[in-house]
Amino acid sequence: MLTERSGRVREARKLLRRPAREKSGRFLAEGPQAVREAVAAGPGRVLEVFATPAAAQRWPEIIATAQAAGVSVVTAADAALAALSETVTPQGLVAVCRSVTVDLATALGGGPRLVAVLAEARDPGNAGTVIRCADAAGADALVLTRGSADPEGGKAVRASAGSVFHLPVSSGAPASDTVDALRAAGLTVLAADGIADLDLDQAEDAGLLSGPVAWMFGNEAWGLPPGVRSLADHVVRVPIHGRAESLNLATAAAVCLYATARAQRRPAQP
Amino acid sequence: MLTERSGRVREARKLLRRPAREKSGRFLAEGPQAVREAVAAGPGRVLEVFATPAAAQRWPEIIATAQAAGVSVVTAADAALAALSETVTPQGLVAVCRSVTVDLATALGGGPRLVAVLAEARDPGNAGTVIRCADAAGADALVLTRGSADPEGGKAVRASAGSVFHLPVSSGAPASDTVDALRAAGLTVLAADGIADLDLDQAEDAGLLSGPVAWMFGNEAWGLPPGVRSLADHVVRVPIHGRAESLNLATAAAVCLYATARAQRRPAQP
Repeated sequence: MLTERSGRVREARKLLRRPAREKSGRFLAEGPQAVREAVAAGPGRVLEVFATPAAAQRWPEIIATAQAAGVSVVTAADAALAALSETVTPQGLVAVCRSVTVDLATALGGGPRLVAVLAEARDPGNAGTVIRCADAAGADALVLTRGSADPEGGKAVRASAGSVFHLPVSSGAPASDTVDALRAAGLTVLAADGIADLDLDQAEDAGLLSGPVAWMFGNEAWGLPPGVRSLADHVVRVPIHGRAESLNLATAAAVCLYATARAQRRPAQP
Repeated sequence: MLTERSGRVREARKLLRRPAREKSGRFLAEGPQAVREAVAAGPGRVLEVFATPAAAQRWPEIIATAQAAGVSVVTAADAALAALSETVTPQGLVAVCRSVTVDLATALGGGPRLVAVLAEARDPGNAGTVIRCADAAGADALVLTRGSADPEGGKAVRASAGSVFHLPVSSGAPASDTVDALRAAGLTVLAADGIADLDLDQAEDAGLLSGPVAWMFGNEAWGLPPGVRSLADHVVRVPIHGRAESLNLATAAAVCLYATARAQRRPAQP
Protein backbone atom coordinates (compact mmCIF):
# COMPACT_ATOMS: atom_id res chain seq x y z
CA MET A 1 0.00 0.00 0.00
CA LEU A 2 1.43 3.37 -1.04
CA THR A 3 2.12 6.02 1.57
CA GLU A 4 2.25 9.78 1.20
CA ARG A 5 6.02 9.47 0.75
CA SER A 6 5.89 7.19 -2.28
CA GLY A 7 7.18 8.60 -5.52
CA ARG A 8 3.90 8.12 -7.39
CA VAL A 9 1.93 9.98 -4.74
CA ARG A 10 4.47 12.79 -4.60
CA GLU A 11 4.42 13.06 -8.38
CA ALA A 12 0.62 13.24 -8.41
CA ARG A 13 0.62 15.74 -5.56
CA LYS A 14 2.47 18.25 -7.75
CA LEU A 15 -0.71 18.46 -9.85
CA LEU A 16 -2.40 20.43 -7.10
CA ARG A 17 -0.50 23.42 -8.57
CA ARG A 18 -1.44 24.97 -11.91
CA PRO A 19 2.10 25.23 -13.40
CA ALA A 20 2.64 21.51 -12.86
CA ARG A 21 -0.72 20.76 -14.50
CA GLU A 22 0.12 22.92 -17.50
CA LYS A 23 3.60 21.45 -17.88
CA SER A 24 2.50 17.82 -17.61
CA GLY A 25 -0.88 18.07 -19.30
CA ARG A 26 -2.36 16.18 -16.38
CA PHE A 27 -4.74 17.00 -13.56
CA LEU A 28 -6.50 15.41 -10.61
CA ALA A 29 -10.13 14.47 -10.31
CA GLU A 30 -11.13 14.00 -6.68
CA GLY A 31 -14.06 12.19 -5.13
CA PRO A 32 -16.40 9.48 -6.39
CA GLN A 33 -18.47 11.64 -8.74
CA ALA A 34 -15.48 13.16 -10.53
CA VAL A 35 -13.59 9.86 -10.72
CA ARG A 36 -16.67 8.06 -12.02
CA GLU A 37 -17.11 10.66 -14.78
CA ALA A 38 -13.39 10.62 -15.59
CA VAL A 39 -13.38 6.84 -16.00
CA ALA A 40 -16.56 7.04 -18.09
CA ALA A 41 -14.99 9.70 -20.31
CA GLY A 42 -13.35 7.09 -22.49
CA PRO A 43 -10.06 5.35 -23.05
CA GLY A 44 -6.90 7.22 -22.20
CA ARG A 45 -8.51 9.92 -20.08
CA VAL A 46 -7.49 8.39 -16.75
CA LEU A 47 -3.88 7.38 -16.16
CA GLU A 48 -4.22 5.98 -12.68
CA VAL A 49 -6.61 5.90 -9.74
CA PHE A 50 -5.54 6.14 -6.11
CA ALA A 51 -7.98 4.68 -3.59
CA THR A 52 -7.92 3.98 0.11
CA PRO A 53 -9.04 0.47 1.05
CA ALA A 54 -12.22 1.95 2.52
CA ALA A 55 -12.99 3.89 -0.66
CA ALA A 56 -12.34 0.86 -2.83
CA GLN A 57 -14.81 -1.06 -0.73
CA ARG A 58 -17.38 1.73 -0.79
CA TRP A 59 -17.33 2.32 -4.56
CA PRO A 60 -16.49 -1.10 -6.05
CA GLU A 61 -18.24 -0.24 -9.35
CA ILE A 62 -15.88 2.69 -9.96
CA ILE A 63 -12.84 0.51 -9.27
CA ALA A 64 -14.20 -2.27 -11.47
CA THR A 65 -14.97 0.10 -14.35
CA ALA A 66 -11.49 1.59 -14.13
CA GLN A 67 -9.84 -1.81 -14.10
CA ALA A 68 -11.99 -3.03 -16.98
CA ALA A 69 -10.76 -0.01 -18.95
CA GLY A 70 -7.18 -1.01 -18.25
CA VAL A 71 -6.56 1.79 -15.74
CA SER A 72 -4.10 1.07 -12.95
CA VAL A 73 -5.83 1.26 -9.58
CA VAL A 74 -3.43 1.76 -6.70
CA THR A 75 -4.30 1.21 -3.07
CA ALA A 76 -2.89 3.93 -0.87
CA ALA A 77 -3.06 4.94 2.76
CA ASP A 78 -5.48 7.54 4.10
CA ALA A 79 -2.59 9.98 4.53
CA ALA A 80 -1.57 9.54 0.89
CA LEU A 81 -5.06 10.34 -0.33
CA ALA A 82 -5.25 13.26 2.09
CA ALA A 83 -2.04 14.57 0.52
CA LEU A 84 -3.75 14.52 -2.89
CA SER A 85 -6.92 16.15 -1.62
CA GLU A 86 -8.01 19.76 -1.37
CA THR A 87 -11.19 19.05 0.55
CA VAL A 88 -11.75 19.12 4.29
CA THR A 89 -13.04 15.56 4.39
CA PRO A 90 -11.22 13.58 1.65
CA GLN A 91 -13.28 10.72 0.28
CA GLY A 92 -10.29 8.56 -0.48
CA LEU A 93 -10.54 8.47 -4.28
CA VAL A 94 -8.43 10.47 -6.75
CA ALA A 95 -7.80 9.95 -10.47
CA VAL A 96 -4.81 11.28 -12.39
CA CYS A 97 -6.30 12.43 -15.70
CA ARG A 98 -4.94 13.56 -19.03
CA SER A 99 -5.89 17.18 -19.74
CA VAL A 100 -9.35 17.63 -21.21
CA THR A 101 -8.67 21.04 -22.69
CA VAL A 102 -8.42 21.53 -26.44
CA ASP A 103 -7.42 24.47 -28.59
CA LEU A 104 -9.99 27.02 -29.74
CA ALA A 105 -10.20 25.65 -33.27
CA THR A 106 -11.00 22.18 -31.98
CA ALA A 107 -13.50 23.45 -29.42
CA LEU A 108 -15.37 25.42 -32.09
CA GLY A 109 -14.87 23.00 -34.95
CA GLY A 110 -18.16 21.15 -34.90
CA GLY A 111 -20.54 23.85 -36.10
CA PRO A 112 -21.48 25.03 -32.60
CA ARG A 113 -24.88 26.62 -31.86
CA LEU A 114 -24.30 27.57 -28.23
CA VAL A 115 -20.96 28.45 -26.66
CA ALA A 116 -20.17 29.94 -23.22
CA VAL A 117 -17.07 32.07 -22.74
CA LEU A 118 -15.56 33.09 -19.40
CA ALA A 119 -13.40 36.19 -19.78
CA GLU A 120 -11.10 36.66 -16.81
CA ALA A 121 -13.39 34.89 -14.35
CA ARG A 122 -10.99 34.14 -11.54
CA ASP A 123 -12.94 31.99 -9.11
CA PRO A 124 -12.50 28.28 -9.87
CA GLY A 125 -15.78 27.39 -8.16
CA ASN A 126 -17.60 29.78 -10.50
CA ALA A 127 -15.75 28.39 -13.51
CA GLY A 128 -16.79 24.87 -12.59
CA THR A 129 -20.39 25.88 -11.94
CA VAL A 130 -20.62 27.64 -15.31
CA ILE A 131 -19.16 24.57 -17.04
CA ARG A 132 -21.90 22.51 -15.36
CA CYS A 133 -24.59 25.00 -16.47
CA ALA A 134 -23.23 25.12 -20.01
CA ASP A 135 -23.31 21.33 -20.18
CA ALA A 136 -26.85 21.21 -18.77
CA ALA A 137 -28.04 23.85 -21.25
CA GLY A 138 -26.60 21.81 -24.11
CA ALA A 139 -23.71 24.13 -24.97
CA ASP A 140 -21.32 22.80 -27.58
CA ALA A 141 -18.19 24.25 -25.99
CA LEU A 142 -16.85 26.25 -23.08
CA VAL A 143 -14.02 28.73 -23.56
CA LEU A 144 -11.97 30.35 -20.80
CA THR A 145 -9.90 33.27 -22.04
CA ARG A 146 -6.36 33.97 -20.86
CA GLY A 147 -6.42 35.23 -17.27
CA SER A 148 -9.34 33.03 -16.23
CA ALA A 149 -9.39 30.29 -13.61
CA ASP A 150 -7.97 26.89 -14.53
CA PRO A 151 -10.85 24.54 -15.40
CA GLU A 152 -8.65 21.62 -14.32
CA GLY A 153 -8.02 22.92 -10.80
CA GLY A 154 -9.56 20.91 -7.97
CA LYS A 155 -12.35 23.34 -7.09
CA ALA A 156 -13.33 23.82 -10.72
CA VAL A 157 -13.44 20.08 -11.40
CA ARG A 158 -15.54 19.46 -8.29
CA ALA A 159 -17.93 22.37 -8.99
CA SER A 160 -18.38 21.13 -12.56
CA ALA A 161 -19.80 17.89 -11.11
CA GLY A 162 -18.27 15.88 -13.95
CA SER A 163 -19.21 18.29 -16.74
CA VAL A 164 -15.56 19.13 -17.42
CA PHE A 165 -15.47 15.67 -19.01
CA HIS A 166 -18.62 16.23 -21.07
CA LEU A 167 -18.03 19.12 -23.46
CA PRO A 168 -14.99 20.59 -25.22
CA VAL A 169 -13.20 23.07 -22.95
CA SER A 170 -10.63 25.51 -24.26
CA SER A 171 -8.44 27.55 -21.93
CA GLY A 172 -5.87 30.30 -22.28
CA ALA A 173 -6.52 31.96 -25.65
CA PRO A 174 -6.51 35.78 -25.63
CA ALA A 175 -9.98 37.34 -25.61
CA SER A 176 -9.54 39.01 -29.01
CA ASP A 177 -8.50 35.73 -30.69
CA THR A 178 -11.47 34.11 -29.01
CA VAL A 179 -13.96 36.61 -30.42
CA ASP A 180 -12.44 36.24 -33.90
CA ALA A 181 -12.78 32.49 -33.67
CA LEU A 182 -16.37 32.67 -32.39
CA ARG A 183 -17.34 34.92 -35.26
CA ALA A 184 -15.52 32.77 -37.80
CA ALA A 185 -17.54 29.83 -36.45
CA GLY A 186 -20.72 31.70 -37.38
CA LEU A 187 -21.75 32.62 -33.84
CA THR A 188 -23.40 35.88 -32.81
CA VAL A 189 -21.27 37.16 -29.95
CA LEU A 190 -23.28 38.43 -26.96
CA ALA A 191 -21.59 40.06 -23.98
CA ALA A 192 -23.47 39.72 -20.69
CA ASP A 193 -23.10 42.92 -18.70
CA GLY A 194 -25.13 44.93 -16.20
CA ILE A 195 -24.95 48.01 -18.41
CA ALA A 196 -26.38 47.24 -21.81
CA ASP A 197 -28.64 48.48 -24.56
CA LEU A 198 -30.76 45.35 -24.58
CA ASP A 199 -32.12 43.16 -21.87
CA LEU A 200 -32.40 39.40 -22.26
CA ASP A 201 -36.13 39.47 -23.01
CA GLN A 202 -35.61 42.10 -25.71
CA ALA A 203 -32.76 40.07 -27.18
CA GLU A 204 -35.03 37.05 -27.35
CA ASP A 205 -37.92 39.04 -28.83
CA ALA A 206 -35.54 40.43 -31.47
CA GLY A 207 -34.63 36.88 -32.48
CA LEU A 208 -31.01 37.25 -31.36
CA LEU A 209 -31.10 34.08 -29.30
CA SER A 210 -32.57 31.79 -31.93
CA GLY A 211 -29.49 31.45 -34.11
CA PRO A 212 -26.00 30.26 -33.16
CA VAL A 213 -24.91 32.26 -30.12
CA ALA A 214 -21.78 32.68 -28.01
CA TRP A 215 -22.25 34.24 -24.55
CA MET A 216 -19.33 36.02 -22.92
CA PHE A 217 -19.33 36.40 -19.13
CA GLY A 218 -16.80 38.49 -17.21
CA ASN A 219 -15.06 38.70 -13.90
CA GLU A 220 -16.95 38.21 -10.61
CA ALA A 221 -16.08 41.65 -9.28
CA TRP A 222 -15.63 43.92 -12.27
CA GLY A 223 -17.51 42.23 -15.08
CA LEU A 224 -16.27 42.10 -18.63
CA PRO A 225 -12.99 43.83 -19.45
CA PRO A 226 -13.95 46.92 -21.54
CA GLY A 227 -11.77 45.71 -24.40
CA VAL A 228 -13.72 42.46 -24.53
CA ARG A 229 -17.13 44.06 -24.11
CA SER A 230 -16.52 46.29 -27.12
CA LEU A 231 -15.76 43.27 -29.33
CA ALA A 232 -19.23 41.78 -28.92
CA ASP A 233 -22.02 42.09 -31.48
CA HIS A 234 -24.44 43.07 -28.69
CA VAL A 235 -24.22 43.76 -25.00
CA VAL A 236 -27.15 42.21 -23.14
CA ARG A 237 -28.16 42.47 -19.49
CA VAL A 238 -30.28 40.14 -17.42
CA PRO A 239 -33.31 42.24 -16.45
CA ILE A 240 -33.52 43.07 -12.76
CA HIS A 241 -37.18 43.17 -11.80
CA GLY A 242 -36.62 43.72 -8.08
CA ARG A 243 -34.11 45.69 -6.05
CA ALA A 244 -31.03 43.48 -6.33
CA GLU A 245 -28.11 45.20 -7.96
CA SER A 246 -27.16 42.19 -10.04
CA LEU A 247 -27.01 38.42 -10.14
CA ASN A 248 -23.84 36.53 -9.38
CA LEU A 249 -21.80 35.14 -12.27
CA ALA A 250 -23.05 31.57 -12.24
CA THR A 251 -26.74 32.40 -11.86
CA ALA A 252 -26.55 35.08 -14.57
CA ALA A 253 -24.85 32.59 -16.88
CA ALA A 254 -27.52 29.97 -16.13
CA VAL A 255 -30.31 32.41 -16.99
CA CYS A 256 -28.68 33.52 -20.26
CA LEU A 257 -27.74 30.03 -21.41
CA TYR A 258 -31.17 28.57 -20.63
CA ALA A 259 -33.03 31.43 -22.30
CA THR A 260 -30.95 30.72 -25.39
CA ALA A 261 -31.42 26.97 -25.25
CA ARG A 262 -35.16 27.55 -25.10
CA ALA A 263 -35.21 30.12 -27.92
CA GLN A 264 -33.17 27.81 -30.15
CA ARG A 265 -35.60 24.95 -29.56
CA ARG A 266 -38.83 26.87 -30.04
CA PRO A 267 -40.62 26.68 -33.35
CA ALA A 268 -40.23 29.99 -35.21
CA GLN A 269 -42.80 32.53 -34.08
CA PRO A 270 -45.16 33.81 -36.76
CA MET B 1 -12.58 52.83 21.39
CA LEU B 2 -14.22 49.52 22.22
CA THR B 3 -12.12 46.38 22.43
CA GLU B 4 -13.11 42.76 21.90
CA ARG B 5 -13.63 42.50 25.67
CA SER B 6 -16.25 45.23 25.90
CA GLY B 7 -19.73 44.18 26.89
CA ARG B 8 -21.37 45.54 23.73
CA VAL B 9 -18.99 43.63 21.49
CA ARG B 10 -19.40 40.43 23.48
CA GLU B 11 -23.17 40.82 23.35
CA ALA B 12 -23.07 41.32 19.58
CA ARG B 13 -20.69 38.40 19.17
CA LYS B 14 -23.34 36.03 20.52
CA LEU B 15 -25.32 36.73 17.34
CA LEU B 16 -22.87 34.63 15.35
CA ARG B 17 -24.89 31.68 16.67
CA ARG B 18 -28.40 30.90 15.46
CA PRO B 19 -30.04 30.29 18.87
CA ALA B 20 -28.91 33.71 20.07
CA ARG B 21 -30.27 35.28 16.88
CA GLU B 22 -33.61 33.55 17.30
CA LYS B 23 -33.88 34.44 20.98
CA SER B 24 -32.98 38.10 20.55
CA GLY B 25 -34.56 38.75 17.15
CA ARG B 26 -31.30 40.34 16.05
CA PHE B 27 -28.57 39.45 13.58
CA LEU B 28 -25.33 40.81 12.16
CA ALA B 29 -24.75 42.29 8.73
CA GLU B 30 -21.05 42.31 7.87
CA GLY B 31 -19.11 44.28 5.32
CA PRO B 32 -19.81 47.54 3.48
CA GLN B 33 -22.41 46.19 1.05
CA ALA B 34 -24.54 44.52 3.70
CA VAL B 35 -24.25 47.43 6.15
CA ARG B 36 -25.13 49.92 3.41
CA GLU B 37 -28.26 47.95 2.51
CA ALA B 38 -29.19 47.48 6.16
CA VAL B 39 -28.98 51.21 6.83
CA ALA B 40 -30.94 51.92 3.65
CA ALA B 41 -33.63 49.44 4.70
CA GLY B 42 -35.39 52.09 6.75
CA PRO B 43 -35.79 53.28 10.31
CA GLY B 44 -35.37 50.79 13.10
CA ARG B 45 -33.69 48.09 11.05
CA VAL B 46 -30.18 48.83 12.36
CA LEU B 47 -29.59 49.10 16.10
CA GLU B 48 -25.89 49.92 16.04
CA VAL B 49 -22.90 49.89 13.72
CA PHE B 50 -19.41 48.87 14.78
CA ALA B 51 -16.59 50.27 12.66
CA THR B 52 -12.82 50.31 12.89
CA PRO B 53 -11.27 53.76 12.41
CA ALA B 54 -9.94 52.62 9.02
CA ALA B 55 -13.38 51.40 7.88
CA ALA B 56 -15.04 54.62 9.05
CA GLN B 57 -12.53 56.53 6.96
CA ARG B 58 -12.96 54.27 3.95
CA TRP B 59 -16.77 54.33 3.86
CA PRO B 60 -17.73 57.75 5.27
CA GLU B 61 -21.04 57.79 3.38
CA ILE B 62 -22.23 54.65 5.17
CA ILE B 63 -21.31 56.12 8.54
CA ALA B 64 -22.96 59.41 7.68
CA THR B 65 -26.17 57.74 6.49
CA ALA B 66 -26.33 55.65 9.65
CA GLN B 67 -25.79 58.67 11.88
CA ALA B 68 -28.34 60.71 9.95
CA ALA B 69 -30.83 57.91 10.62
CA GLY B 70 -30.11 58.14 14.33
CA VAL B 71 -28.14 54.89 14.46
CA SER B 72 -25.37 54.68 17.05
CA VAL B 73 -22.00 54.24 15.32
CA VAL B 74 -19.35 52.84 17.63
CA THR B 75 -15.65 52.93 16.89
CA ALA B 76 -14.00 49.67 17.81
CA ALA B 77 -10.58 48.11 17.52
CA ASP B 78 -9.60 45.77 14.70
CA ALA B 79 -9.68 42.85 17.13
CA ALA B 80 -13.23 43.73 18.17
CA LEU B 81 -14.42 43.75 14.57
CA ALA B 82 -12.52 40.53 13.90
CA ALA B 83 -14.40 38.98 16.82
CA LEU B 84 -17.70 39.90 15.10
CA SER B 85 -16.58 38.64 11.72
CA GLU B 86 -16.91 35.29 10.00
CA THR B 87 -14.78 36.19 7.01
CA VAL B 88 -11.08 35.56 6.47
CA THR B 89 -10.34 39.24 5.85
CA PRO B 90 -12.77 41.31 7.96
CA GLN B 91 -13.55 44.66 6.42
CA GLY B 92 -14.08 46.40 9.74
CA LEU B 93 -17.79 47.15 9.47
CA VAL B 94 -20.64 45.27 11.17
CA ALA B 95 -24.24 46.29 11.84
CA VAL B 96 -26.46 44.82 14.53
CA CYS B 97 -29.86 44.54 12.83
CA ARG B 98 -33.37 43.76 13.96
CA SER B 99 -34.64 40.54 12.37
CA VAL B 100 -36.02 40.95 8.86
CA THR B 101 -38.06 37.76 8.93
CA VAL B 102 -41.84 37.90 9.06
CA ASP B 103 -44.50 35.25 9.52
CA LEU B 104 -45.97 33.41 6.56
CA ALA B 105 -49.21 35.37 6.54
CA THR B 106 -47.34 38.66 6.37
CA ALA B 107 -44.92 37.42 3.69
CA LEU B 108 -47.82 36.27 1.51
CA GLY B 109 -50.27 39.02 2.41
CA GLY B 110 -49.79 41.37 -0.52
CA GLY B 111 -51.30 39.37 -3.36
CA PRO B 112 -48.02 37.79 -4.45
CA ARG B 113 -47.43 36.72 -8.06
CA LEU B 114 -44.04 35.06 -7.64
CA VAL B 115 -42.75 33.37 -4.49
CA ALA B 116 -39.66 31.20 -3.94
CA VAL B 117 -39.64 28.53 -1.25
CA LEU B 118 -36.59 26.70 0.07
CA ALA B 119 -37.55 23.40 1.66
CA GLU B 120 -34.79 22.04 3.87
CA ALA B 121 -32.00 23.73 1.95
CA ARG B 122 -29.19 23.55 4.45
CA ASP B 123 -26.37 25.60 2.93
CA PRO B 124 -26.52 29.25 4.00
CA GLY B 125 -24.57 30.37 0.93
CA ASN B 126 -27.20 28.77 -1.29
CA ALA B 127 -30.01 30.30 0.75
CA GLY B 128 -28.46 33.75 0.34
CA THR B 129 -27.86 33.26 -3.38
CA VAL B 130 -31.46 32.16 -3.93
CA ILE B 131 -32.71 35.20 -1.97
CA ARG B 132 -30.60 37.36 -4.31
CA CYS B 133 -32.01 35.61 -7.40
CA ALA B 134 -35.57 35.87 -6.11
CA ASP B 135 -35.10 39.58 -5.52
CA ALA B 136 -33.57 40.07 -8.98
CA ALA B 137 -36.39 38.12 -10.63
CA GLY B 138 -38.92 40.34 -8.89
CA ALA B 139 -40.28 37.75 -6.46
CA ASP B 140 -42.70 39.08 -3.88
CA ALA B 141 -41.50 36.87 -1.03
CA LEU B 142 -39.01 34.19 -0.05
CA VAL B 143 -40.00 31.39 2.32
CA LEU B 144 -37.62 28.99 4.07
CA THR B 145 -39.42 26.03 5.62
CA ARG B 146 -38.50 24.54 8.99
CA GLY B 147 -35.18 22.71 8.72
CA SER B 148 -33.68 25.17 6.23
CA ALA B 149 -30.65 27.39 6.69
CA ASP B 150 -31.03 30.59 8.66
CA PRO B 151 -31.40 33.52 6.23
CA GLU B 152 -29.93 35.79 8.92
CA GLY B 153 -26.70 33.82 9.33
CA GLY B 154 -23.52 35.56 8.20
CA LYS B 155 -22.95 33.53 5.03
CA ALA B 156 -26.57 33.85 3.94
CA VAL B 157 -26.61 37.61 4.49
CA ARG B 158 -23.37 38.03 2.54
CA ALA B 159 -24.45 35.75 -0.32
CA SER B 160 -27.73 37.64 -0.59
CA ALA B 161 -25.73 40.79 -1.41
CA GLY B 162 -28.25 42.93 0.45
CA SER B 163 -31.36 41.22 -0.93
CA VAL B 164 -32.29 39.90 2.51
CA PHE B 165 -33.30 43.51 3.20
CA HIS B 166 -35.30 43.87 -0.02
CA LEU B 167 -38.15 41.39 0.05
CA PRO B 168 -40.23 39.75 2.77
CA VAL B 169 -38.49 36.63 4.10
CA SER B 170 -40.28 34.05 6.21
CA SER B 171 -38.42 31.31 8.03
CA GLY B 172 -39.31 28.28 10.08
CA ALA B 173 -42.87 27.33 9.13
CA PRO B 174 -43.49 23.63 8.49
CA ALA B 175 -43.62 22.70 4.80
CA SER B 176 -47.25 21.57 4.91
CA ASP B 177 -48.42 24.84 6.50
CA THR B 178 -46.38 26.67 3.86
CA VAL B 179 -48.08 24.90 0.97
CA ASP B 180 -51.51 25.58 2.50
CA ALA B 181 -50.65 29.26 2.83
CA LEU B 182 -49.28 29.46 -0.74
CA ARG B 183 -52.45 27.94 -2.10
CA ALA B 184 -54.66 30.15 0.03
CA ALA B 185 -52.77 33.11 -1.43
CA GLY B 186 -53.87 32.00 -4.90
CA LEU B 187 -50.50 30.68 -6.03
CA THR B 188 -49.98 27.62 -8.21
CA VAL B 189 -47.44 25.53 -6.32
CA LEU B 190 -44.65 24.13 -8.48
CA ALA B 191 -42.04 21.76 -7.08
CA ALA B 192 -38.68 21.84 -8.85
CA ASP B 193 -37.26 18.35 -9.03
CA GLY B 194 -35.08 16.31 -11.35
CA ILE B 195 -37.76 13.66 -11.73
CA ALA B 196 -40.93 15.23 -13.03
CA ASP B 197 -43.78 14.86 -15.48
CA LEU B 198 -43.20 18.26 -17.04
CA ASP B 199 -40.11 20.17 -17.98
CA LEU B 200 -39.86 23.93 -17.60
CA ASP B 201 -40.48 24.61 -21.31
CA GLN B 202 -43.60 22.44 -21.26
CA ALA B 203 -44.81 24.18 -18.11
CA GLU B 204 -44.39 27.52 -19.84
CA ASP B 205 -46.08 26.32 -23.02
CA ALA B 206 -48.98 25.01 -20.94
CA GLY B 207 -49.41 28.48 -19.45
CA LEU B 208 -48.53 27.33 -15.93
CA LEU B 209 -45.96 30.07 -15.46
CA SER B 210 -48.10 32.99 -16.54
CA GLY B 211 -50.29 33.20 -13.45
CA PRO B 212 -49.27 33.58 -9.80
CA VAL B 213 -46.65 30.93 -9.05
CA ALA B 214 -44.75 29.64 -6.04
CA TRP B 215 -41.62 27.61 -6.74
CA MET B 216 -40.39 25.10 -4.15
CA PHE B 217 -36.74 24.08 -4.20
CA GLY B 218 -35.28 21.32 -2.06
CA ASN B 219 -32.12 20.24 -0.35
CA GLU B 220 -28.74 20.49 -2.11
CA ALA B 221 -28.02 16.77 -1.83
CA TRP B 222 -31.34 14.98 -1.82
CA GLY B 223 -33.76 17.44 -3.39
CA LEU B 224 -37.29 17.96 -2.16
CA PRO B 225 -38.50 15.86 0.75
CA PRO B 226 -41.05 13.38 -0.73
CA GLY B 227 -43.76 14.66 1.61
CA VAL B 228 -43.27 18.18 0.24
CA ARG B 229 -43.02 17.14 -3.40
CA SER B 230 -46.37 15.38 -3.19
CA LEU B 231 -48.07 18.55 -1.94
CA ALA B 232 -47.28 20.52 -5.10
CA ASP B 233 -49.75 21.14 -7.91
CA HIS B 234 -47.10 20.12 -10.44
CA VAL B 235 -43.57 18.78 -10.32
CA VAL B 236 -41.38 20.47 -12.93
CA ARG B 237 -37.80 19.76 -13.96
CA VAL B 238 -35.28 22.04 -15.62
CA PRO B 239 -34.58 20.34 -18.96
CA ILE B 240 -31.07 18.92 -19.26
CA HIS B 241 -30.01 19.29 -22.87
CA GLY B 242 -26.46 18.01 -22.40
CA ARG B 243 -24.88 15.32 -20.27
CA ALA B 244 -24.91 17.01 -16.85
CA GLU B 245 -26.91 15.10 -14.28
CA SER B 246 -28.47 18.24 -12.84
CA LEU B 247 -27.94 21.91 -12.03
CA ASN B 248 -27.00 23.06 -8.57
CA LEU B 249 -29.69 24.56 -6.36
CA ALA B 250 -29.00 28.24 -6.99
CA THR B 251 -28.64 27.99 -10.76
CA ALA B 252 -31.76 25.82 -11.05
CA ALA B 253 -33.68 28.35 -8.97
CA ALA B 254 -32.41 31.21 -11.14
CA VAL B 255 -33.56 29.47 -14.32
CA CYS B 256 -37.03 28.65 -12.92
CA LEU B 257 -37.62 32.09 -11.40
CA TYR B 258 -36.48 33.96 -14.51
CA ALA B 259 -38.53 31.78 -16.86
CA THR B 260 -41.55 32.63 -14.70
CA ALA B 261 -40.77 36.35 -14.52
CA ARG B 262 -40.58 36.38 -18.31
CA ALA B 263 -43.78 34.37 -18.83
CA GLN B 264 -45.67 36.65 -16.43
CA ARG B 265 -44.52 39.74 -18.33
CA ARG B 266 -45.18 38.48 -21.86
CA PRO B 267 -48.32 39.49 -23.64
CA ALA B 268 -50.68 36.52 -23.87
CA GLN B 269 -49.86 34.32 -26.86
CA PRO B 270 -52.59 34.00 -29.48
